[in-house]
Amino acid sequence: MDYNQLFEQIKRKKSFLCVGLDTDITKIPSFLLKEEDPVFEFNKRIIEATIPYAVAYKPNIAFYEAHGVSGWKSLEKTINYLNLVYEEAFVIADAKRGDIGNTSKMYARAFFEQFSCDAITVAPYMGKDSVAPFLEFKNKWVILLALTSNESAKDFQLLNIKDSDRNLFETVLEKSKEWGNKDNLMYVVGATQAEHLQEIRKQIPYNFLLIPGVGAQGGSLKEVAENGMNDSCGLLVNSSRAIIYADNSGDFDRIASKKANELQSEMAELLKSKGLI
Amino acid sequence: MDYNQLFEQIKRKKSFLCVGLDTDITKIPSFLLKEEDPVFEFNKRIIEATIPYAVAYKPNIAFYEAHGVSGWKSLEKTINYLNLVYEEAFVIADAKRGDIGNTSKMYARAFFEQFSCDAITVAPYMGKDSVAPFLEFKNKWVILLALTSNESAKDFQLLNIKDSDRNLFETVLEKSKEWGNKDNLMYVVGATQAEHLQEIRKQIPYNFLLIPGVGAQGGSLKEVAENGMNDSCGLLVNSSRAIIYADNSGDFDRIASKKANELQSEMAELLKSKGLI
Repeated sequence: MDYNQLFEQIKRKKSFLCVGLDTDITKIPSFLLKEEDPVFEFNKRIIEATIPYAVAYKPNIAFYEAHGVSGWKSLEKTINYLNLVYEEAFVIADAKRGDIGNTSKMYARAFFEQFSCDAITVAPYMGKDSVAPFLEFKNKWVILLALTSNESAKDFQLLNIKDSDRNLFETVLEKSKEWGNKDNLMYVVGATQAEHLQEIRKQIPYNFLLIPGVGAQGGSLKEVAENGMNDSCGLLVNSSRAIIYADNSGDFDRIASKKANELQSEMAELLKSKGLI
Repeated sequence: MDYNQLFEQIKRKKSFLCVGLDTDITKIPSFLLKEEDPVFEFNKRIIEATIPYAVAYKPNIAFYEAHGVSGWKSLEKTINYLNLVYEEAFVIADAKRGDIGNTSKMYARAFFEQFSCDAITVAPYMGKDSVAPFLEFKNKWVILLALTSNESAKDFQLLNIKDSDRNLFETVLEKSKEWGNKDNLMYVVGATQAEHLQEIRKQIPYNFLLIPGVGAQGGSLKEVAENGMNDSCGLLVNSSRAIIYADNSGDFDRIASKKANELQSEMAELLKSKGLI
Protein backbone atom coordinates (compact mmCIF):
# COMPACT_ATOMS: atom_id res chain seq x y z
CA MET A 1 0.00 0.00 0.00
CA ASP A 2 1.43 3.42 -0.90
CA TYR A 3 1.22 6.81 0.83
CA ASN A 4 -1.85 8.01 -1.06
CA GLN A 5 -3.70 4.72 -0.71
CA LEU A 6 -3.13 4.83 3.01
CA PHE A 7 -4.47 8.38 3.23
CA GLU A 8 -7.50 7.31 1.13
CA GLN A 9 -8.25 4.52 3.62
CA ILE A 10 -7.97 7.00 6.47
CA LYS A 11 -10.50 9.32 4.80
CA ARG A 12 -12.82 6.47 3.86
CA LYS A 13 -12.93 5.02 7.38
CA LYS A 14 -12.57 8.43 9.08
CA SER A 15 -9.99 6.74 11.24
CA PHE A 16 -6.26 6.49 11.76
CA LEU A 17 -6.58 3.65 14.22
CA CYS A 18 -4.14 0.76 14.31
CA VAL A 19 -5.21 -2.23 16.40
CA GLY A 20 -2.32 -3.93 18.14
CA LEU A 21 -2.57 -7.71 18.15
CA ASP A 22 -0.51 -8.36 21.31
CA THR A 23 -2.35 -11.62 21.72
CA ASP A 24 -1.50 -13.44 24.93
CA ILE A 25 -3.10 -16.85 25.37
CA THR A 26 -3.34 -16.31 29.14
CA LYS A 27 -5.49 -13.21 28.63
CA ILE A 28 -7.99 -14.27 25.98
CA PRO A 29 -11.48 -15.48 26.93
CA SER A 30 -11.23 -19.03 28.24
CA PHE A 31 -13.99 -20.41 26.01
CA LEU A 32 -11.66 -19.88 23.03
CA LEU A 33 -9.15 -22.37 24.43
CA LYS A 34 -11.21 -25.25 23.03
CA GLU A 35 -10.49 -23.99 19.49
CA GLU A 36 -7.72 -25.66 17.50
CA ASP A 37 -5.78 -22.38 17.36
CA PRO A 38 -7.16 -20.10 20.09
CA VAL A 39 -4.77 -17.24 19.28
CA PHE A 40 -5.79 -17.14 15.63
CA GLU A 41 -9.47 -17.51 16.51
CA PHE A 42 -9.19 -14.58 18.92
CA ASN A 43 -7.40 -12.44 16.33
CA LYS A 44 -9.93 -13.32 13.64
CA ARG A 45 -12.83 -12.24 15.82
CA ILE A 46 -11.04 -9.07 16.92
CA ILE A 47 -10.30 -8.19 13.30
CA GLU A 48 -13.89 -8.86 12.16
CA ALA A 49 -15.18 -6.74 15.03
CA THR A 50 -12.86 -3.78 14.53
CA ILE A 51 -12.31 -3.65 10.77
CA PRO A 52 -14.96 -0.93 10.20
CA TYR A 53 -12.99 1.35 12.52
CA ALA A 54 -9.34 0.45 11.92
CA VAL A 55 -7.02 1.14 8.98
CA ALA A 56 -4.10 -0.90 10.30
CA TYR A 57 -3.30 -3.98 12.36
CA LYS A 58 -0.07 -4.52 14.19
CA PRO A 59 0.79 -8.05 15.35
CA ASN A 60 3.41 -7.79 18.08
CA ILE A 61 5.77 -10.55 16.98
CA ALA A 62 7.12 -11.32 20.47
CA PHE A 63 3.73 -12.61 21.60
CA TYR A 64 3.81 -15.22 18.83
CA GLU A 65 7.49 -16.13 19.12
CA ALA A 66 6.94 -16.86 22.81
CA HIS A 67 5.09 -20.00 21.66
CA GLY A 68 7.73 -21.13 19.19
CA VAL A 69 6.58 -22.94 16.06
CA SER A 70 2.90 -23.00 17.06
CA GLY A 71 3.05 -19.23 17.69
CA TRP A 72 4.46 -18.69 14.22
CA LYS A 73 1.62 -20.73 12.79
CA SER A 74 -0.91 -18.46 14.53
CA LEU A 75 0.96 -15.43 13.24
CA GLU A 76 1.04 -16.74 9.69
CA LYS A 77 -2.67 -17.52 9.76
CA THR A 78 -3.47 -14.07 11.15
CA ILE A 79 -1.48 -12.23 8.50
CA ASN A 80 -2.81 -14.42 5.69
CA TYR A 81 -6.33 -13.83 6.94
CA LEU A 82 -5.81 -10.07 6.91
CA ASN A 83 -4.30 -10.14 3.44
CA LEU A 84 -6.94 -12.40 1.93
CA VAL A 85 -10.10 -11.11 3.56
CA TYR A 86 -9.32 -7.47 4.30
CA GLU A 87 -6.78 -6.38 1.74
CA GLU A 88 -7.52 -2.74 2.56
CA ALA A 89 -5.89 -3.26 5.98
CA PHE A 90 -2.35 -1.97 6.40
CA VAL A 91 -0.38 -4.73 8.18
CA ILE A 92 2.54 -3.83 10.43
CA ALA A 93 4.93 -6.45 11.77
CA ASP A 94 5.96 -4.98 15.11
CA ALA A 95 9.27 -6.79 15.21
CA LYS A 96 11.92 -4.16 16.11
CA ARG A 97 14.46 -5.92 13.89
CA GLY A 98 17.78 -4.60 12.55
CA ASP A 99 21.15 -6.29 11.89
CA ILE A 100 24.08 -6.22 9.46
CA GLY A 101 23.03 -5.96 5.79
CA ASN A 102 22.85 -9.62 4.75
CA THR A 103 20.86 -10.40 7.92
CA SER A 104 18.44 -7.46 7.64
CA LYS A 105 17.76 -8.68 4.11
CA MET A 106 16.63 -12.00 5.56
CA TYR A 107 14.34 -10.25 8.04
CA ALA A 108 12.92 -8.20 5.16
CA ARG A 109 12.19 -11.40 3.25
CA ALA A 110 10.54 -12.91 6.30
CA PHE A 111 8.09 -10.08 6.81
CA PHE A 112 7.63 -8.66 3.29
CA GLU A 113 7.74 -11.84 1.20
CA GLN A 114 6.99 -14.78 3.46
CA PHE A 115 4.27 -12.91 5.36
CA SER A 116 3.32 -10.06 2.96
CA CYS A 117 3.23 -7.40 5.66
CA ASP A 118 3.13 -3.77 4.51
CA ALA A 119 5.55 -2.53 7.12
CA ILE A 120 8.01 -3.58 9.79
CA THR A 121 9.33 -1.72 12.82
CA VAL A 122 13.14 -1.44 12.79
CA ALA A 123 15.65 -0.37 15.49
CA PRO A 124 18.22 2.21 14.29
CA TYR A 125 21.21 1.46 16.56
CA MET A 126 23.28 -0.28 13.84
CA GLY A 127 22.87 2.55 11.32
CA LYS A 128 22.13 2.90 7.64
CA ASP A 129 23.26 -0.47 6.29
CA SER A 130 21.04 -2.26 8.81
CA VAL A 131 17.97 -0.34 7.59
CA ALA A 132 18.62 -0.02 3.84
CA PRO A 133 17.78 -3.66 2.91
CA PHE A 134 14.22 -3.13 4.14
CA LEU A 135 13.85 0.03 2.03
CA GLU A 136 14.55 -1.80 -1.22
CA PHE A 137 11.11 -3.43 -1.33
CA LYS A 138 8.59 -1.55 -3.47
CA ASN A 139 5.47 -0.34 -1.67
CA LYS A 140 6.79 -1.66 1.63
CA TRP A 141 7.63 0.44 4.65
CA VAL A 142 10.22 0.73 7.37
CA ILE A 143 8.89 2.16 10.62
CA LEU A 144 12.04 3.32 12.36
CA LEU A 145 12.17 3.68 16.14
CA ALA A 146 12.68 7.34 16.96
CA LEU A 147 11.28 8.27 20.37
CA THR A 148 9.62 5.31 22.05
CA SER A 149 6.80 5.32 24.60
CA ASN A 150 8.60 3.55 27.45
CA GLU A 151 10.04 5.21 30.55
CA SER A 152 13.63 4.25 29.65
CA ALA A 153 13.41 5.91 26.23
CA LYS A 154 15.34 8.71 27.97
CA ASP A 155 18.36 6.46 28.68
CA PHE A 156 19.76 6.96 25.19
CA GLN A 157 17.18 8.56 22.89
CA LEU A 158 17.20 11.88 24.75
CA LEU A 159 20.97 12.18 25.12
CA ASN A 160 22.42 15.27 23.52
CA ILE A 161 24.84 14.72 20.63
CA LYS A 162 27.80 17.08 20.78
CA ASP A 163 28.38 17.86 17.10
CA SER A 164 24.79 18.58 16.15
CA ASP A 165 23.44 19.76 19.51
CA ARG A 166 20.47 17.49 18.85
CA ASN A 167 19.09 14.58 20.85
CA LEU A 168 19.95 11.10 19.65
CA PHE A 169 16.42 10.51 18.38
CA GLU A 170 16.53 13.80 16.43
CA THR A 171 19.84 12.66 14.93
CA VAL A 172 18.14 9.40 13.94
CA LEU A 173 15.43 11.43 12.19
CA GLU A 174 17.98 13.67 10.48
CA LYS A 175 20.24 10.92 9.19
CA SER A 176 17.50 8.53 8.16
CA LYS A 177 15.87 11.22 6.00
CA GLU A 178 18.76 10.57 3.63
CA TRP A 179 18.03 6.83 3.51
CA GLY A 180 14.35 6.94 2.60
CA ASN A 181 11.44 9.30 2.13
CA LYS A 182 7.80 9.79 3.03
CA ASP A 183 6.87 6.93 0.69
CA ASN A 184 8.83 4.20 2.42
CA LEU A 185 9.78 5.49 5.84
CA MET A 186 7.63 6.10 8.93
CA TYR A 187 8.75 6.66 12.51
CA VAL A 188 7.69 5.38 15.91
CA VAL A 189 6.97 8.22 18.34
CA GLY A 190 5.30 7.29 21.62
CA ALA A 191 2.03 9.02 22.52
CA THR A 192 3.60 9.62 25.91
CA GLN A 193 6.09 11.93 24.13
CA ALA A 194 3.50 14.39 22.75
CA GLU A 195 5.50 17.41 23.97
CA HIS A 196 8.16 16.54 21.38
CA LEU A 197 5.74 16.19 18.45
CA GLN A 198 5.79 19.82 17.27
CA GLU A 199 9.57 19.80 17.02
CA ILE A 200 9.51 16.39 15.33
CA ARG A 201 7.06 17.72 12.73
CA LYS A 202 9.52 20.52 11.88
CA GLN A 203 12.12 17.86 11.07
CA ILE A 204 9.84 15.42 9.25
CA PRO A 205 6.70 17.24 8.10
CA TYR A 206 5.47 14.59 5.66
CA ASN A 207 6.35 11.14 7.03
CA PHE A 208 3.72 9.04 8.75
CA LEU A 209 4.22 8.44 12.47
CA LEU A 210 3.21 5.25 14.22
CA ILE A 211 2.09 6.29 17.68
CA PRO A 212 1.84 3.63 20.38
CA GLY A 213 1.10 4.39 23.98
CA VAL A 214 -2.49 5.69 23.81
CA GLY A 215 -4.57 3.86 26.40
CA ALA A 216 -2.74 1.47 28.74
CA GLN A 217 0.46 3.54 28.61
CA GLY A 218 -1.33 6.87 29.25
CA GLY A 219 -0.88 8.99 26.10
CA SER A 220 -3.56 11.46 24.93
CA LEU A 221 -5.06 11.10 21.44
CA LYS A 222 -6.10 14.75 21.27
CA GLU A 223 -2.65 16.03 22.13
CA VAL A 224 -1.06 13.68 19.60
CA ALA A 225 -3.39 14.88 16.83
CA GLU A 226 -2.99 18.56 17.66
CA ASN A 227 0.80 18.34 17.56
CA GLY A 228 1.41 15.60 15.04
CA MET A 229 -1.26 15.62 12.33
CA ASN A 230 -0.25 16.82 8.87
CA ASP A 231 -2.15 17.41 5.61
CA SER A 232 -2.27 13.68 4.83
CA CYS A 233 -3.13 12.87 8.45
CA GLY A 234 0.37 11.43 8.85
CA LEU A 235 -0.60 9.44 11.93
CA LEU A 236 -1.35 5.85 12.75
CA VAL A 237 -2.33 5.65 16.40
CA ASN A 238 -2.07 2.22 17.93
CA SER A 239 -4.19 0.80 20.69
CA SER A 240 -3.69 -2.77 21.84
CA ARG A 241 -4.73 -3.77 25.33
CA ALA A 242 -7.47 -1.11 25.68
CA ILE A 243 -9.29 -2.70 22.73
CA ILE A 244 -8.43 -6.37 22.61
CA TYR A 245 -8.65 -7.01 26.35
CA ALA A 246 -11.50 -4.59 27.11
CA ASP A 247 -13.68 -7.59 27.95
CA ASN A 248 -13.04 -11.23 28.73
CA SER A 249 -16.49 -12.74 28.23
CA GLY A 250 -18.35 -14.26 25.27
CA ASP A 251 -18.99 -10.64 24.31
CA PHE A 252 -15.32 -9.69 24.01
CA ASP A 253 -15.52 -8.97 20.30
CA ARG A 254 -18.62 -6.78 20.62
CA ILE A 255 -16.91 -4.77 23.39
CA ALA A 256 -13.68 -4.54 21.35
CA SER A 257 -15.77 -3.22 18.47
CA LYS A 258 -17.34 -0.62 20.77
CA LYS A 259 -13.93 0.51 22.08
CA ALA A 260 -12.54 0.77 18.54
CA ASN A 261 -15.63 2.70 17.47
CA GLU A 262 -15.17 5.15 20.35
CA LEU A 263 -11.58 5.84 19.31
CA GLN A 264 -12.61 6.09 15.66
CA SER A 265 -15.32 8.64 16.51
CA GLU A 266 -12.77 10.74 18.36
CA MET A 267 -10.43 10.42 15.37
CA ALA A 268 -13.18 11.46 12.94
CA GLU A 269 -13.67 14.66 14.96
CA LEU A 270 -9.95 15.37 14.88
CA LEU A 271 -9.76 14.73 11.11
CA LYS A 272 -12.76 17.06 10.61
CA SER A 273 -11.31 19.83 12.71
CA LYS A 274 -8.16 19.63 10.55
CA GLY A 275 -10.37 19.83 7.42
CA LEU A 276 -9.21 16.46 6.08
CA ILE A 277 -12.68 14.87 5.82
CA MET B 1 25.66 -22.08 31.84
CA ASP B 2 27.37 -19.67 34.24
CA TYR B 3 30.55 -17.58 33.91
CA ASN B 4 32.86 -20.18 35.45
CA GLN B 5 31.38 -23.08 33.52
CA LEU B 6 31.90 -21.15 30.31
CA PHE B 7 35.54 -20.48 31.19
CA GLU B 8 35.97 -24.17 32.06
CA GLN B 9 34.69 -25.16 28.61
CA ILE B 10 37.09 -22.68 27.02
CA LYS B 11 40.02 -24.21 28.91
CA ARG B 12 38.88 -27.77 28.20
CA LYS B 13 38.52 -27.22 24.45
CA LYS B 14 41.38 -24.69 24.26
CA SER B 15 39.01 -22.61 22.20
CA PHE B 16 36.80 -19.54 22.40
CA LEU B 17 35.22 -20.21 19.04
CA CYS B 18 31.55 -19.61 18.37
CA VAL B 19 30.21 -21.09 15.13
CA GLY B 20 27.55 -18.92 13.51
CA LEU B 21 24.68 -20.88 12.02
CA ASP B 22 23.64 -18.36 9.34
CA THR B 23 22.19 -21.22 7.36
CA ASP B 24 20.91 -20.19 3.93
CA ILE B 25 19.21 -22.91 1.92
CA THR B 26 20.56 -21.41 -1.33
CA LYS B 27 24.14 -21.87 -0.11
CA ILE B 28 24.17 -25.36 1.36
CA PRO B 29 25.40 -28.37 -0.68
CA SER B 30 22.69 -29.36 -3.14
CA PHE B 31 22.71 -33.05 -2.22
CA LEU B 32 21.19 -32.05 1.14
CA LEU B 33 18.08 -30.70 -0.57
CA LYS B 34 16.65 -34.21 -0.81
CA GLU B 35 16.52 -34.39 3.00
CA GLU B 36 13.21 -33.72 4.74
CA ASP B 37 14.68 -30.67 6.51
CA PRO B 38 17.86 -29.67 4.63
CA VAL B 39 18.61 -26.72 6.93
CA PHE B 40 18.51 -28.87 10.06
CA GLU B 41 20.48 -31.65 8.37
CA PHE B 42 23.16 -29.12 7.37
CA ASN B 43 23.30 -27.67 10.89
CA LYS B 44 23.48 -31.12 12.47
CA ARG B 45 26.45 -32.10 10.32
CA ILE B 46 28.19 -28.75 10.89
CA ILE B 47 27.72 -29.12 14.64
CA GLU B 48 28.98 -32.72 14.68
CA ALA B 49 32.00 -31.66 12.62
CA THR B 50 32.93 -28.60 14.68
CA ILE B 51 31.96 -29.52 18.25
CA PRO B 52 35.53 -30.59 19.23
CA TYR B 53 36.68 -27.05 18.41
CA ALA B 54 33.77 -24.79 19.35
CA VAL B 55 32.40 -23.74 22.74
CA ALA B 56 29.38 -21.88 21.37
CA TYR B 57 26.88 -21.92 18.50
CA LYS B 58 24.99 -18.89 17.29
CA PRO B 59 21.96 -19.45 15.09
CA ASN B 60 21.22 -16.19 13.27
CA ILE B 61 17.46 -16.05 13.70
CA ALA B 62 16.79 -14.01 10.53
CA PHE B 63 17.91 -16.88 8.33
CA TYR B 64 15.23 -19.12 9.85
CA GLU B 65 12.48 -16.49 10.01
CA ALA B 66 12.96 -15.88 6.28
CA HIS B 67 11.27 -19.27 5.75
CA GLY B 68 8.36 -18.63 8.09
CA VAL B 69 6.93 -21.58 9.99
CA SER B 70 9.18 -24.15 8.32
CA GLY B 71 12.23 -22.02 9.19
CA TRP B 72 11.15 -21.95 12.82
CA LYS B 73 10.85 -25.72 12.77
CA SER B 74 14.45 -26.02 11.54
CA LEU B 75 15.54 -23.57 14.24
CA GLU B 76 13.71 -25.48 16.96
CA LYS B 77 15.22 -28.77 15.85
CA THR B 78 18.71 -27.26 15.72
CA ILE B 79 18.51 -25.81 19.23
CA ASN B 80 16.93 -28.97 20.65
CA TYR B 81 19.66 -31.03 19.04
CA LEU B 82 22.34 -28.84 20.59
CA ASN B 83 20.70 -28.99 24.01
CA LEU B 84 20.11 -32.74 23.97
CA VAL B 85 23.28 -34.02 22.35
CA TYR B 86 25.87 -31.41 23.22
CA GLU B 87 24.78 -29.84 26.46
CA GLU B 88 28.26 -28.40 26.96
CA ALA B 89 27.63 -26.04 24.02
CA PHE B 90 26.71 -22.44 24.83
CA VAL B 91 23.78 -21.52 22.58
CA ILE B 92 23.30 -17.92 21.50
CA ALA B 93 20.12 -16.73 19.77
CA ASP B 94 21.40 -13.97 17.54
CA ALA B 95 18.11 -12.14 17.43
CA LYS B 96 18.87 -8.45 18.15
CA ARG B 97 15.57 -8.11 20.02
CA GLY B 98 14.44 -5.34 22.41
CA ASP B 99 11.06 -3.71 23.07
CA ILE B 100 8.95 -2.25 25.90
CA GLY B 101 8.99 -4.33 29.08
CA ASN B 102 5.98 -6.61 28.59
CA THR B 103 7.13 -7.36 25.04
CA SER B 104 10.78 -8.02 25.90
CA LYS B 105 9.47 -10.45 28.50
CA MET B 106 7.78 -12.39 25.69
CA TYR B 107 10.98 -12.45 23.65
CA ALA B 108 12.84 -13.70 26.73
CA ARG B 109 10.31 -16.51 27.10
CA ALA B 110 10.68 -17.38 23.43
CA PHE B 111 14.43 -17.81 23.53
CA PHE B 112 15.08 -18.84 27.15
CA GLU B 113 12.06 -21.03 27.87
CA GLN B 114 10.61 -22.17 24.55
CA PHE B 115 14.03 -22.74 22.99
CA SER B 116 16.37 -23.06 26.05
CA CYS B 117 19.08 -20.86 24.59
CA ASP B 118 21.79 -19.67 26.98
CA ALA B 119 21.94 -16.14 25.59
CA ILE B 120 20.24 -13.67 23.29
CA THR B 121 21.60 -10.60 21.53
CA VAL B 122 19.66 -7.44 22.45
CA ALA B 123 19.63 -3.92 20.94
CA PRO B 124 19.99 -1.12 23.52
CA TYR B 125 18.14 1.76 21.80
CA MET B 126 15.03 1.57 24.01
CA GLY B 127 17.00 1.63 27.28
CA LYS B 128 16.93 -0.19 30.59
CA ASP B 129 13.33 -1.39 30.76
CA SER B 130 13.70 -3.05 27.35
CA VAL B 131 16.71 -5.05 28.55
CA ALA B 132 15.83 -5.80 32.18
CA PRO B 133 13.22 -8.53 31.48
CA PHE B 134 15.92 -10.66 29.83
CA LEU B 135 18.20 -10.26 32.85
CA GLU B 136 15.68 -11.79 35.23
CA PHE B 137 16.32 -15.34 34.00
CA LYS B 138 18.81 -17.27 36.15
CA ASN B 139 21.92 -18.51 34.33
CA LYS B 140 20.79 -16.83 31.12
CA TRP B 141 22.61 -14.04 29.38
CA VAL B 142 21.93 -10.80 27.56
CA ILE B 143 24.50 -9.96 24.89
CA LEU B 144 23.97 -6.24 24.40
CA LEU B 145 24.98 -4.54 21.16
CA ALA B 146 27.76 -2.09 21.92
CA LEU B 147 29.99 -1.47 18.89
CA THR B 148 28.94 -3.57 15.92
CA SER B 149 31.06 -4.86 13.05
CA ASN B 150 29.22 -3.18 10.18
CA GLU B 151 30.35 -0.07 8.31
CA SER B 152 27.35 2.00 9.49
CA ALA B 153 28.10 1.31 13.15
CA LYS B 154 29.59 4.82 13.05
CA ASP B 155 26.24 6.44 12.17
CA PHE B 156 25.11 6.48 15.80
CA GLN B 157 27.39 4.28 17.95
CA LEU B 158 30.41 6.58 17.54
CA LEU B 159 28.57 9.87 18.08
CA ASN B 160 29.89 11.88 20.98
CA ILE B 161 27.49 12.46 23.86
CA LYS B 162 27.71 15.99 25.23
CA ASP B 163 27.25 15.44 28.98
CA SER B 164 29.66 12.55 29.37
CA ASP B 165 32.07 13.30 26.51
CA ARG B 166 31.82 9.62 25.64
CA ASN B 167 30.68 7.89 22.47
CA LEU B 168 27.19 6.48 22.40
CA PHE B 169 28.47 2.90 22.59
CA GLU B 170 30.60 3.80 25.63
CA THR B 171 27.51 5.34 27.22
CA VAL B 172 25.67 2.08 26.54
CA LEU B 173 28.48 0.21 28.34
CA GLU B 174 28.47 2.65 31.23
CA LYS B 175 24.71 2.67 31.83
CA SER B 176 24.18 -1.03 31.28
CA LYS B 177 26.80 -1.86 33.93
CA GLU B 178 24.14 -0.78 36.41
CA TRP B 179 21.56 -3.17 34.95
CA GLY B 180 23.55 -6.38 35.04
CA ASN B 181 26.98 -7.77 35.78
CA LYS B 182 29.63 -10.11 34.41
CA ASP B 183 27.41 -13.09 35.25
CA ASN B 184 24.47 -12.15 33.04
CA LEU B 185 25.66 -9.49 30.63
CA MET B 186 28.00 -9.75 27.65
CA TYR B 187 28.56 -7.24 24.86
CA VAL B 188 28.83 -7.40 21.09
CA VAL B 189 32.00 -5.71 19.83
CA GLY B 190 32.89 -6.24 16.18
CA ALA B 191 36.30 -7.70 15.36
CA THR B 192 36.59 -4.87 12.85
CA GLN B 193 36.66 -2.48 15.84
CA ALA B 194 39.80 -3.90 17.49
CA GLU B 195 41.33 -0.43 17.94
CA HIS B 196 38.59 0.30 20.48
CA LEU B 197 39.06 -2.88 22.50
CA GLN B 198 41.68 -1.57 24.92
CA GLU B 199 39.47 1.33 25.93
CA ILE B 200 36.45 -0.97 26.16
CA ARG B 201 38.36 -3.29 28.51
CA LYS B 202 39.01 -0.32 30.83
CA GLN B 203 35.26 0.20 31.09
CA ILE B 204 34.25 -3.46 31.36
CA PRO B 205 37.24 -5.55 32.44
CA TYR B 206 35.31 -8.68 33.38
CA ASN B 207 32.37 -9.10 31.01
CA PHE B 208 32.54 -11.53 28.13
CA LEU B 209 32.54 -10.01 24.65
CA LEU B 210 30.93 -11.66 21.65
CA ILE B 211 33.11 -10.75 18.69
CA PRO B 212 31.67 -11.19 15.21
CA GLY B 213 33.47 -10.06 12.08
CA VAL B 214 36.50 -12.35 12.02
CA GLY B 215 36.78 -13.90 8.55
CA ALA B 216 34.32 -12.69 5.91
CA GLN B 217 34.11 -9.22 7.48
CA GLY B 218 37.89 -8.82 7.79
CA GLY B 219 38.68 -8.65 11.54
CA SER B 220 41.92 -10.08 12.97
CA LEU B 221 41.78 -12.76 15.67
CA LYS B 222 45.24 -11.94 17.00
CA GLU B 223 44.48 -8.25 17.40
CA VAL B 224 41.18 -9.06 19.11
CA ALA B 225 42.88 -11.40 21.59
CA GLU B 226 45.76 -9.02 22.32
CA ASN B 227 43.42 -6.15 23.09
CA GLY B 228 40.36 -7.90 24.45
CA MET B 229 41.34 -11.05 26.35
CA ASN B 230 41.02 -10.98 30.16
CA ASP B 231 41.90 -13.44 32.94
CA SER B 232 38.83 -15.58 32.19
CA CYS B 233 39.42 -15.29 28.45
CA GLY B 234 36.35 -13.04 28.25
CA LEU B 235 35.97 -13.59 24.52
CA LEU B 236 33.70 -15.57 22.27
CA VAL B 237 34.84 -15.06 18.70
CA ASN B 238 32.27 -15.90 16.07
CA SER B 239 32.92 -17.22 12.60
CA SER B 240 30.04 -18.07 10.32
CA ARG B 241 30.58 -18.05 6.57
CA ALA B 242 34.32 -18.86 6.71
CA ILE B 243 33.46 -22.16 8.41
CA ILE B 244 30.03 -23.27 7.31
CA TYR B 245 30.41 -22.31 3.62
CA ALA B 246 34.12 -23.16 3.28
CA ASP B 247 33.15 -25.99 0.94
CA ASN B 248 30.05 -26.92 -0.99
CA SER B 249 30.70 -30.57 -1.83
CA GLY B 250 29.93 -33.85 -0.11
CA ASP B 251 32.99 -33.05 1.99
CA PHE B 252 31.59 -29.79 3.37
CA ASP B 253 31.52 -31.02 6.95
CA ARG B 254 35.07 -32.31 6.87
CA ILE B 255 36.28 -28.96 5.48
CA ALA B 256 34.21 -27.05 8.06
CA SER B 257 35.86 -29.19 10.74
CA LYS B 258 39.29 -28.34 9.34
CA LYS B 259 38.52 -24.60 9.28
CA ALA B 260 37.21 -24.70 12.85
CA ASN B 261 40.29 -26.68 13.92
CA GLU B 262 42.56 -24.04 12.34
CA LEU B 263 40.85 -21.25 14.26
CA GLN B 264 40.89 -23.33 17.45
CA SER B 265 44.65 -23.96 17.09
CA GLU B 266 45.23 -20.24 16.75
CA MET B 267 43.04 -19.66 19.80
CA ALA B 268 44.93 -22.28 21.81
CA GLU B 269 48.18 -20.40 21.11
CA LEU B 270 46.60 -17.13 22.21
CA LEU B 271 45.23 -18.70 25.40
CA LYS B 272 48.67 -20.19 26.12
CA SER B 273 50.49 -16.93 25.58
CA LYS B 274 48.12 -15.33 28.09
CA GLY B 275 48.87 -18.18 30.54
CA LEU B 276 45.26 -19.35 30.70
CA ILE B 277 45.90 -22.94 29.63
